[in-house]
Amino acid sequence: MRIYDRPGFPNPTRIRIVLAEKQLDSQVEFIPVDLIGAEHKSPAFLQKNPSGVLPVLELDDGTFISESTAITEYLDHMDGHPTLTGTTPKQRGLIHMMQRRAEAELIDPVGEYFHHATPGLGPKLQAFKSLDWTGRAEWGRRQGERARAGMTYFNAVLGQQPYIAGEVFSMADITIFAGLLFADAAGLTIPENSHALLAWRARVAELPSVKHRSGQAFLADDARRLGL
Amino acid sequence: MRIYDRPGFPNPTRIRIVLAEKQLDSQVEFIPVDLIGAEHKSPAFLQKNPSGVLPVLELDDGTFISESTAITEYLDHMDGHPTLTGTTPKQRGLIHMMQRRAEAELIDPVGEYFHHATPGLGPKLQAFKSLDWTGRAEWGRRQGERARAGMTYFNAVLGQQPYIAGEVFSMADITIFAGLLFADAAGLTIPENSHALLAWRARVAELPSVKHRSGQAFLADDARRLGL
Repeated sequence: MRIYDRPGFPNPTRIRIVLAEKQLDSQVEFIPVDLIGAEHKSPAFLQKNPSGVLPVLELDDGTFISESTAITEYLDHMDGHPTLTGTTPKQRGLIHMMQRRAEAELIDPVGEYFHHATPGLGPKLQAFKSLDWTGRAEWGRRQGERARAGMTYFNAVLGQQPYIAGEVFSMADITIFAGLLFADAAGLTIPENSHALLAWRARVAELPSVKHRSGQAFLADDARRLGL
Repeated sequence: MRIYDRPGFPNPTRIRIVLAEKQLDSQVEFIPVDLIGAEHKSPAFLQKNPSGVLPVLELDDGTFISESTAITEYLDHMDGHPTLTGTTPKQRGLIHMMQRRAEAELIDPVGEYFHHATPGLGPKLQAFKSLDWTGRAEWGRRQGERARAGMTYFNAVLGQQPYIAGEVFSMADITIFAGLLFADAAGLTIPENSHALLAWRARVAELPSVKHRSGQAFLADDARRLGL
Protein backbone atom coordinates (compact mmCIF):
# COMPACT_ATOMS: atom_id res chain seq x y z
CA MET A 1 0.00 0.00 0.00
CA ARG A 2 0.97 3.62 -0.45
CA ILE A 3 0.67 6.75 1.67
CA TYR A 4 0.60 10.12 -0.08
CA ASP A 5 1.78 12.63 2.48
CA ARG A 6 4.21 15.33 3.50
CA PRO A 7 5.98 14.22 6.64
CA GLY A 8 6.24 16.77 9.41
CA PHE A 9 2.80 18.28 8.75
CA PRO A 10 0.09 17.67 11.37
CA ASN A 11 -2.20 15.05 9.82
CA PRO A 12 0.62 13.14 8.08
CA THR A 13 2.31 12.99 11.50
CA ARG A 14 -0.79 11.32 12.96
CA ILE A 15 -0.69 8.53 10.41
CA ARG A 16 3.12 8.12 10.65
CA ILE A 17 2.67 7.47 14.39
CA VAL A 18 -0.20 5.03 13.72
CA LEU A 19 1.97 3.14 11.21
CA ALA A 20 4.82 2.91 13.73
CA GLU A 21 2.44 1.79 16.51
CA LYS A 22 1.12 -0.97 14.24
CA GLN A 23 4.64 -1.81 12.96
CA LEU A 24 3.45 -1.33 9.39
CA ASP A 25 6.09 1.18 8.20
CA SER A 26 7.92 -1.41 6.12
CA GLN A 27 4.72 -2.39 4.27
CA VAL A 28 4.11 1.15 3.04
CA GLU A 29 5.53 3.05 0.10
CA PHE A 30 5.54 6.76 0.95
CA ILE A 31 4.82 9.14 -1.92
CA PRO A 32 5.76 12.72 -1.05
CA VAL A 33 3.23 15.38 -2.11
CA ASP A 34 4.54 18.88 -2.80
CA LEU A 35 2.34 20.73 -0.33
CA ILE A 36 4.28 23.96 -0.75
CA GLY A 37 3.79 23.79 -4.53
CA ALA A 38 0.03 23.16 -3.97
CA GLU A 39 0.21 19.70 -5.61
CA HIS A 40 -2.62 18.61 -3.28
CA LYS A 41 -4.96 21.01 -5.14
CA SER A 42 -4.04 19.64 -8.59
CA PRO A 43 -6.64 17.72 -10.64
CA ALA A 44 -4.52 14.55 -10.42
CA PHE A 45 -4.49 14.68 -6.63
CA LEU A 46 -8.18 15.64 -6.35
CA GLN A 47 -8.93 12.37 -8.15
CA LYS A 48 -7.37 10.60 -5.16
CA ASN A 49 -9.03 12.81 -2.54
CA PRO A 50 -11.68 15.36 -3.62
CA SER A 51 -11.21 17.19 -0.31
CA GLY A 52 -7.65 18.07 -1.38
CA VAL A 53 -5.93 17.27 1.91
CA LEU A 54 -3.22 14.91 3.14
CA PRO A 55 -2.64 12.12 3.94
CA VAL A 56 -4.25 9.62 1.55
CA LEU A 57 -3.88 5.83 1.73
CA GLU A 58 -3.94 3.81 -1.50
CA LEU A 59 -4.66 0.11 -1.11
CA ASP A 60 -3.12 -2.49 -3.43
CA ASP A 61 -6.48 -2.82 -5.23
CA GLY A 62 -6.41 0.89 -6.09
CA THR A 63 -8.92 2.03 -3.44
CA PHE A 64 -8.17 5.44 -1.92
CA ILE A 65 -8.96 6.13 1.72
CA SER A 66 -8.61 9.65 3.10
CA GLU A 67 -9.43 11.31 6.46
CA SER A 68 -7.09 10.43 9.31
CA THR A 69 -9.73 8.66 11.41
CA ALA A 70 -10.73 6.46 8.47
CA ILE A 71 -7.11 5.60 7.61
CA THR A 72 -6.49 4.76 11.27
CA GLU A 73 -9.56 2.50 11.36
CA TYR A 74 -8.22 0.62 8.32
CA LEU A 75 -4.66 0.26 9.59
CA ASP A 76 -5.71 -0.63 13.14
CA HIS A 77 -7.97 -3.46 11.95
CA MET A 78 -5.60 -4.95 9.33
CA ASP A 79 -4.21 -7.56 11.74
CA GLY A 80 -7.55 -8.24 13.46
CA HIS A 81 -6.21 -6.86 16.73
CA PRO A 82 -7.15 -3.20 17.13
CA THR A 83 -5.04 -1.35 19.71
CA LEU A 84 -5.74 2.30 18.88
CA THR A 85 -9.51 2.37 18.24
CA GLY A 86 -10.82 0.28 21.16
CA THR A 87 -11.94 -3.30 21.65
CA THR A 88 -15.19 -2.98 23.63
CA PRO A 89 -18.22 -0.95 22.46
CA LYS A 90 -17.67 1.51 25.32
CA GLN A 91 -13.98 1.97 24.46
CA ARG A 92 -14.87 2.45 20.79
CA GLY A 93 -17.48 5.05 21.69
CA LEU A 94 -15.22 7.00 24.05
CA ILE A 95 -12.23 6.92 21.69
CA HIS A 96 -14.31 8.15 18.74
CA MET A 97 -15.86 10.85 20.94
CA MET A 98 -12.44 12.12 22.04
CA GLN A 99 -10.99 11.78 18.54
CA ARG A 100 -13.72 14.07 17.21
CA ARG A 101 -13.26 16.46 20.12
CA ALA A 102 -9.48 16.48 19.55
CA GLU A 103 -10.10 17.57 15.97
CA ALA A 104 -12.90 20.07 16.66
CA GLU A 105 -11.37 21.66 19.77
CA LEU A 106 -7.66 21.54 18.95
CA ILE A 107 -6.17 20.50 15.62
CA ASP A 108 -8.83 22.14 13.40
CA PRO A 109 -8.89 25.53 15.21
CA VAL A 110 -5.07 25.56 15.27
CA GLY A 111 -5.24 25.13 11.48
CA GLU A 112 -7.70 28.01 11.14
CA TYR A 113 -5.48 30.19 13.34
CA PHE A 114 -2.40 29.25 11.30
CA HIS A 115 -4.05 30.03 7.95
CA HIS A 116 -6.05 33.14 8.90
CA ALA A 117 -4.27 34.86 11.80
CA THR A 118 -0.61 34.26 10.80
CA PRO A 119 1.23 34.46 7.45
CA GLY A 120 0.69 30.67 7.33
CA LEU A 121 2.08 29.06 4.20
CA GLY A 122 2.02 32.27 2.16
CA PRO A 123 -0.10 33.69 -0.67
CA LYS A 124 0.25 30.79 -3.11
CA LEU A 125 -1.49 28.38 -0.76
CA GLN A 126 -3.70 30.92 0.99
CA ALA A 127 -5.41 31.44 -2.36
CA PHE A 128 -7.17 28.15 -1.65
CA LYS A 129 -8.54 29.46 1.63
CA SER A 130 -11.64 31.63 1.98
CA LEU A 131 -9.66 34.89 1.82
CA ASP A 132 -12.44 36.99 0.41
CA TRP A 133 -14.88 36.96 3.25
CA THR A 134 -14.17 39.78 5.62
CA GLY A 135 -13.11 39.47 9.22
CA ARG A 136 -10.82 36.53 8.53
CA ALA A 137 -7.97 37.61 10.82
CA GLU A 138 -10.43 38.15 13.66
CA TRP A 139 -11.93 34.74 12.91
CA GLY A 140 -8.43 33.24 12.95
CA ARG A 141 -7.66 34.84 16.31
CA ARG A 142 -10.89 33.51 17.78
CA GLN A 143 -9.97 30.05 16.57
CA GLY A 144 -6.62 30.44 18.31
CA GLU A 145 -8.51 31.24 21.53
CA ARG A 146 -10.69 28.20 20.92
CA ALA A 147 -7.62 25.99 20.53
CA ARG A 148 -6.22 27.30 23.83
CA ALA A 149 -9.58 26.65 25.51
CA GLY A 150 -9.31 23.14 24.04
CA MET A 151 -5.90 22.71 25.67
CA THR A 152 -7.40 23.72 29.03
CA TYR A 153 -10.20 21.20 28.55
CA PHE A 154 -7.82 18.35 27.66
CA ASN A 155 -5.62 19.30 30.63
CA ALA A 156 -8.67 18.81 32.87
CA VAL A 157 -9.42 15.46 31.21
CA LEU A 158 -5.83 14.32 31.85
CA GLY A 159 -6.15 15.33 35.49
CA GLN A 160 -8.76 12.55 35.79
CA GLN A 161 -7.32 9.76 33.64
CA PRO A 162 -3.93 8.78 32.16
CA TYR A 163 -4.90 9.09 28.49
CA ILE A 164 -7.26 11.26 26.45
CA ALA A 165 -9.98 8.61 26.10
CA GLY A 166 -9.41 6.72 29.37
CA GLU A 167 -6.96 4.14 30.66
CA VAL A 168 -5.43 3.22 27.29
CA PHE A 169 -3.32 5.10 24.73
CA SER A 170 -5.45 5.57 21.59
CA MET A 171 -5.75 7.46 18.31
CA ALA A 172 -7.19 10.39 20.29
CA ASP A 173 -3.83 10.79 22.09
CA ILE A 174 -2.06 10.82 18.72
CA THR A 175 -4.39 13.56 17.47
CA ILE A 176 -3.78 15.76 20.52
CA PHE A 177 -0.02 15.18 20.30
CA ALA A 178 0.03 16.23 16.62
CA GLY A 179 -2.27 19.16 17.42
CA LEU A 180 0.19 20.45 20.04
CA LEU A 181 3.08 20.13 17.57
CA PHE A 182 1.01 22.20 15.11
CA ALA A 183 0.24 24.75 17.85
CA ASP A 184 4.00 25.07 18.51
CA ALA A 185 4.61 25.73 14.82
CA ALA A 186 1.80 28.32 14.73
CA GLY A 187 3.08 30.09 17.85
CA LEU A 188 0.11 29.16 20.07
CA THR A 189 1.37 28.44 23.58
CA ILE A 190 -0.11 26.01 26.08
CA PRO A 191 -1.93 27.90 28.90
CA GLU A 192 -0.07 28.22 32.21
CA ASN A 193 -0.65 25.58 34.88
CA SER A 194 -1.49 22.89 32.34
CA HIS A 195 0.48 20.43 34.43
CA ALA A 196 -1.44 17.30 33.48
CA LEU A 197 -1.28 18.09 29.76
CA LEU A 198 2.46 18.80 29.90
CA ALA A 199 3.19 15.64 31.91
CA TRP A 200 1.13 13.57 29.45
CA ARG A 201 2.94 15.20 26.53
CA ALA A 202 6.35 14.34 27.98
CA ARG A 203 5.21 10.74 28.49
CA VAL A 204 3.80 10.37 24.96
CA ALA A 205 6.92 11.97 23.44
CA GLU A 206 8.96 9.06 24.83
CA LEU A 207 6.90 6.35 23.13
CA PRO A 208 9.04 4.60 20.48
CA SER A 209 6.39 5.26 17.79
CA VAL A 210 6.48 8.98 18.58
CA LYS A 211 10.15 9.45 19.46
CA HIS A 212 11.55 8.05 16.25
CA ARG A 213 9.01 9.42 13.81
CA SER A 214 10.35 10.54 10.47
CA GLY A 215 9.81 13.78 8.60
CA GLN A 216 12.15 16.30 10.18
CA ALA A 217 14.27 16.56 7.00
CA PHE A 218 11.15 17.37 4.97
CA LEU A 219 10.13 20.06 7.43
CA ALA A 220 13.57 21.71 7.25
CA ASP A 221 13.42 21.59 3.44
CA ASP A 222 9.93 23.16 3.41
CA ALA A 223 11.01 25.89 5.81
CA ARG A 224 13.96 26.70 3.54
CA ARG A 225 11.68 26.94 0.47
CA LEU A 226 9.28 29.19 2.38
CA GLY A 227 12.20 31.43 3.40
CA LEU A 228 11.59 30.84 7.11
CA MET B 1 -29.43 3.59 28.70
CA ARG B 2 -30.65 7.11 28.02
CA ILE B 3 -30.55 9.42 25.01
CA TYR B 4 -30.73 13.17 25.62
CA ASP B 5 -32.03 14.67 22.40
CA ARG B 6 -34.65 16.73 20.61
CA PRO B 7 -36.32 14.56 17.99
CA GLY B 8 -36.70 16.07 14.56
CA PHE B 9 -33.39 17.95 14.68
CA PRO B 10 -30.61 16.72 12.36
CA ASN B 11 -28.16 14.90 14.64
CA PRO B 12 -30.88 13.46 16.91
CA THR B 13 -32.51 12.11 13.73
CA ARG B 14 -29.28 10.29 12.82
CA ILE B 15 -29.21 8.44 16.14
CA ARG B 16 -32.99 7.72 16.08
CA ILE B 17 -32.45 5.94 12.74
CA VAL B 18 -29.43 4.05 14.11
CA LEU B 19 -31.48 2.90 17.12
CA ALA B 20 -34.28 1.71 14.82
CA GLU B 21 -31.80 -0.08 12.51
CA LYS B 22 -30.32 -1.88 15.51
CA GLN B 23 -33.79 -2.50 17.05
CA LEU B 24 -32.69 -0.85 20.26
CA ASP B 25 -35.50 1.71 20.65
CA SER B 26 -37.18 -0.21 23.46
CA GLN B 27 -33.93 -0.34 25.48
CA VAL B 28 -33.59 3.44 25.52
CA GLU B 29 -35.17 6.07 27.72
CA PHE B 30 -35.41 9.32 25.74
CA ILE B 31 -34.90 12.53 27.72
CA PRO B 32 -36.08 15.60 25.77
CA VAL B 33 -33.75 18.61 25.90
CA ASP B 34 -35.31 22.05 25.48
CA LEU B 35 -33.20 23.18 22.52
CA ILE B 36 -35.37 26.24 21.93
CA GLY B 37 -34.91 27.28 25.56
CA ALA B 38 -31.12 26.77 25.19
CA GLU B 39 -31.07 24.02 27.82
CA HIS B 40 -28.14 22.44 25.93
CA LYS B 41 -25.99 25.45 26.91
CA SER B 42 -26.86 25.19 30.63
CA PRO B 43 -24.15 24.20 33.16
CA ALA B 44 -26.03 20.98 33.97
CA PHE B 45 -26.04 19.90 30.32
CA LEU B 46 -22.43 20.98 29.72
CA GLN B 47 -21.47 18.50 32.45
CA LYS B 48 -22.86 15.79 30.19
CA ASN B 49 -21.34 17.16 26.99
CA PRO B 50 -18.90 20.08 27.20
CA SER B 51 -19.45 20.74 23.47
CA GLY B 52 -23.08 21.68 24.25
CA VAL B 53 -24.69 19.77 21.39
CA LEU B 54 -27.20 16.95 21.00
CA PRO B 55 -27.59 14.01 21.12
CA VAL B 56 -25.84 12.51 24.15
CA LEU B 57 -25.95 8.84 25.19
CA GLU B 58 -25.77 7.96 28.88
CA LEU B 59 -24.81 4.38 29.69
CA ASP B 60 -26.19 2.56 32.71
CA ASP B 61 -22.83 3.03 34.50
CA GLY B 62 -23.17 6.82 34.14
CA THR B 63 -20.71 7.22 31.24
CA PHE B 64 -21.68 9.93 28.74
CA ILE B 65 -20.90 9.47 25.04
CA SER B 66 -21.48 12.36 22.62
CA GLU B 67 -20.73 12.92 18.91
CA SER B 68 -22.97 11.03 16.50
CA THR B 69 -20.19 8.87 15.04
CA ALA B 70 -19.08 7.80 18.52
CA ILE B 71 -22.63 7.00 19.65
CA THR B 72 -23.16 5.02 16.45
CA GLU B 73 -19.95 3.05 17.03
CA TYR B 74 -21.17 2.15 20.53
CA LEU B 75 -24.68 1.16 19.48
CA ASP B 76 -23.53 -0.74 16.38
CA HIS B 77 -21.09 -2.89 18.39
CA MET B 78 -23.38 -3.63 21.36
CA ASP B 79 -24.56 -6.95 19.92
CA GLY B 80 -21.18 -7.91 18.46
CA HIS B 81 -22.58 -7.74 14.94
CA PRO B 82 -21.88 -4.34 13.41
CA THR B 83 -24.08 -3.55 10.39
CA LEU B 84 -23.65 0.22 10.02
CA THR B 85 -19.91 0.75 10.55
CA GLY B 86 -18.40 -2.03 8.43
CA THR B 87 -17.06 -5.49 9.08
CA THR B 88 -13.81 -5.60 7.06
CA PRO B 89 -10.94 -3.13 7.51
CA LYS B 90 -11.61 -1.74 4.02
CA GLN B 91 -15.34 -1.26 4.72
CA ARG B 92 -14.54 0.39 8.04
CA GLY B 93 -12.09 2.75 6.33
CA LEU B 94 -14.47 3.70 3.52
CA ILE B 95 -17.48 4.16 5.82
CA HIS B 96 -15.52 6.39 8.20
CA MET B 97 -14.14 8.36 5.24
CA MET B 98 -17.62 8.99 3.84
CA GLN B 99 -19.07 9.67 7.29
CA ARG B 100 -16.51 12.44 7.80
CA ARG B 101 -17.13 13.76 4.29
CA ALA B 102 -20.91 13.70 4.87
CA GLU B 103 -20.40 15.89 7.91
CA ALA B 104 -17.78 18.24 6.44
CA GLU B 105 -19.38 18.66 3.00
CA LEU B 106 -23.08 18.52 3.86
CA ILE B 107 -24.53 18.50 7.36
CA ASP B 108 -22.00 20.93 8.91
CA PRO B 109 -22.17 23.58 6.13
CA VAL B 110 -25.99 23.33 6.12
CA GLY B 111 -25.82 24.13 9.84
CA GLU B 112 -23.55 27.14 9.22
CA TYR B 113 -25.91 28.34 6.48
CA PHE B 114 -28.93 27.90 8.75
CA HIS B 115 -27.38 29.80 11.66
CA HIS B 116 -25.60 32.57 9.74
CA ALA B 117 -27.46 33.17 6.47
CA THR B 118 -31.08 32.67 7.63
CA PRO B 119 -32.94 33.79 10.80
CA GLY B 120 -32.11 30.30 12.11
CA LEU B 121 -33.45 29.67 15.60
CA GLY B 122 -33.64 33.36 16.51
CA PRO B 123 -31.64 35.72 18.74
CA LYS B 124 -31.78 33.73 21.97
CA LEU B 125 -29.87 30.81 20.47
CA GLN B 126 -27.84 32.82 17.98
CA ALA B 127 -26.22 34.50 21.01
CA PHE B 128 -24.21 31.29 21.34
CA LYS B 129 -22.91 31.61 17.78
CA SER B 130 -19.99 33.79 16.77
CA LEU B 131 -22.19 36.79 15.92
CA ASP B 132 -19.59 39.44 16.54
CA TRP B 133 -17.11 38.62 13.80
CA THR B 134 -17.98 40.48 10.66
CA GLY B 135 -19.00 38.95 7.38
CA ARG B 136 -21.08 36.23 8.99
CA ALA B 137 -23.97 36.33 6.51
CA GLU B 138 -21.53 36.11 3.60
CA TRP B 139 -19.81 33.22 5.39
CA GLY B 140 -23.18 31.55 5.86
CA ARG B 141 -24.04 31.97 2.17
CA ARG B 142 -20.71 30.45 1.15
CA GLN B 143 -21.38 27.51 3.41
CA GLY B 144 -24.74 27.10 1.67
CA GLU B 145 -22.87 26.95 -1.67
CA ARG B 146 -20.50 24.43 -0.15
CA ALA B 147 -23.41 22.25 0.96
CA ARG B 148 -24.87 22.35 -2.56
CA ALA B 149 -21.45 21.42 -4.00
CA GLY B 150 -21.47 18.56 -1.50
CA MET B 151 -24.85 17.41 -2.86
CA THR B 152 -23.39 17.39 -6.38
CA TYR B 153 -20.42 15.36 -5.16
CA PHE B 154 -22.61 12.78 -3.40
CA ASN B 155 -24.84 12.59 -6.48
CA ALA B 156 -21.73 11.63 -8.49
CA VAL B 157 -20.77 9.04 -5.87
CA LEU B 158 -24.26 7.50 -6.08
CA GLY B 159 -23.96 7.34 -9.86
CA GLN B 160 -21.19 4.79 -9.30
CA GLN B 161 -22.45 2.73 -6.36
CA PRO B 162 -25.78 2.03 -4.61
CA TYR B 163 -24.88 3.54 -1.22
CA ILE B 164 -22.69 6.41 -0.02
CA ALA B 165 -19.79 4.20 1.12
CA GLY B 166 -20.19 1.36 -1.39
CA GLU B 167 -22.45 -1.66 -1.75
CA VAL B 168 -23.94 -1.58 1.75
CA PHE B 169 -26.21 0.87 3.62
CA SER B 170 -24.14 2.44 6.42
CA MET B 171 -23.99 5.28 8.92
CA ALA B 172 -22.76 7.53 6.11
CA ASP B 173 -26.12 7.11 4.32
CA ILE B 174 -27.92 8.08 7.52
CA THR B 175 -25.81 11.23 7.82
CA ILE B 176 -26.53 12.30 4.23
CA PHE B 177 -30.24 11.57 4.66
CA ALA B 178 -30.39 13.72 7.83
CA GLY B 179 -28.29 16.38 6.10
CA LEU B 180 -30.82 16.62 3.26
CA LEU B 181 -33.72 16.91 5.75
CA PHE B 182 -31.81 19.77 7.39
CA ALA B 183 -31.19 21.38 3.99
CA ASP B 184 -34.95 21.21 3.29
CA ALA B 185 -35.64 22.96 6.60
CA ALA B 186 -33.02 25.63 5.83
CA GLY B 187 -34.39 26.21 2.32
CA LEU B 188 -31.34 24.85 0.48
CA THR B 189 -32.50 22.96 -2.60
CA ILE B 190 -30.84 19.99 -4.23
CA PRO B 191 -29.12 21.02 -7.51
CA GLU B 192 -30.97 20.15 -10.75
CA ASN B 193 -30.19 16.86 -12.46
CA SER B 194 -29.18 15.16 -9.20
CA HIS B 195 -30.96 12.04 -10.37
CA ALA B 196 -28.83 9.50 -8.52
CA LEU B 197 -29.09 11.42 -5.23
CA LEU B 198 -32.87 11.79 -5.55
CA ALA B 199 -33.35 8.12 -6.45
CA TRP B 200 -31.18 7.07 -3.49
CA ARG B 201 -33.13 9.43 -1.20
CA ALA B 202 -36.45 7.91 -2.27
CA ARG B 203 -35.06 4.42 -1.65
CA VAL B 204 -33.67 5.27 1.81
CA ALA B 205 -36.92 7.05 2.79
CA GLU B 206 -38.72 3.72 2.41
CA LEU B 207 -36.49 1.82 4.86
CA PRO B 208 -38.53 0.88 7.95
CA SER B 209 -35.97 2.52 10.26
CA VAL B 210 -36.32 5.78 8.34
CA LYS B 211 -39.99 5.70 7.40
CA HIS B 212 -41.34 5.28 10.91
CA ARG B 213 -38.93 7.53 12.75
CA SER B 214 -40.38 9.55 15.59
CA GLY B 215 -40.07 13.23 16.33
CA GLN B 216 -42.58 14.97 14.07
CA ALA B 217 -44.75 16.07 17.04
CA PHE B 218 -41.72 17.68 18.67
CA LEU B 219 -40.86 19.54 15.48
CA ALA B 220 -44.39 20.91 15.18
CA ASP B 221 -44.26 22.02 18.81
CA ASP B 222 -40.90 23.75 18.30
CA ALA B 223 -42.18 25.50 15.19
CA ARG B 224 -45.19 26.79 17.13
CA ARG B 225 -42.95 28.12 19.93
CA LEU B 226 -40.72 29.82 17.37
CA GLY B 227 -43.79 31.39 15.77
CA LEU B 228 -43.10 29.73 12.41
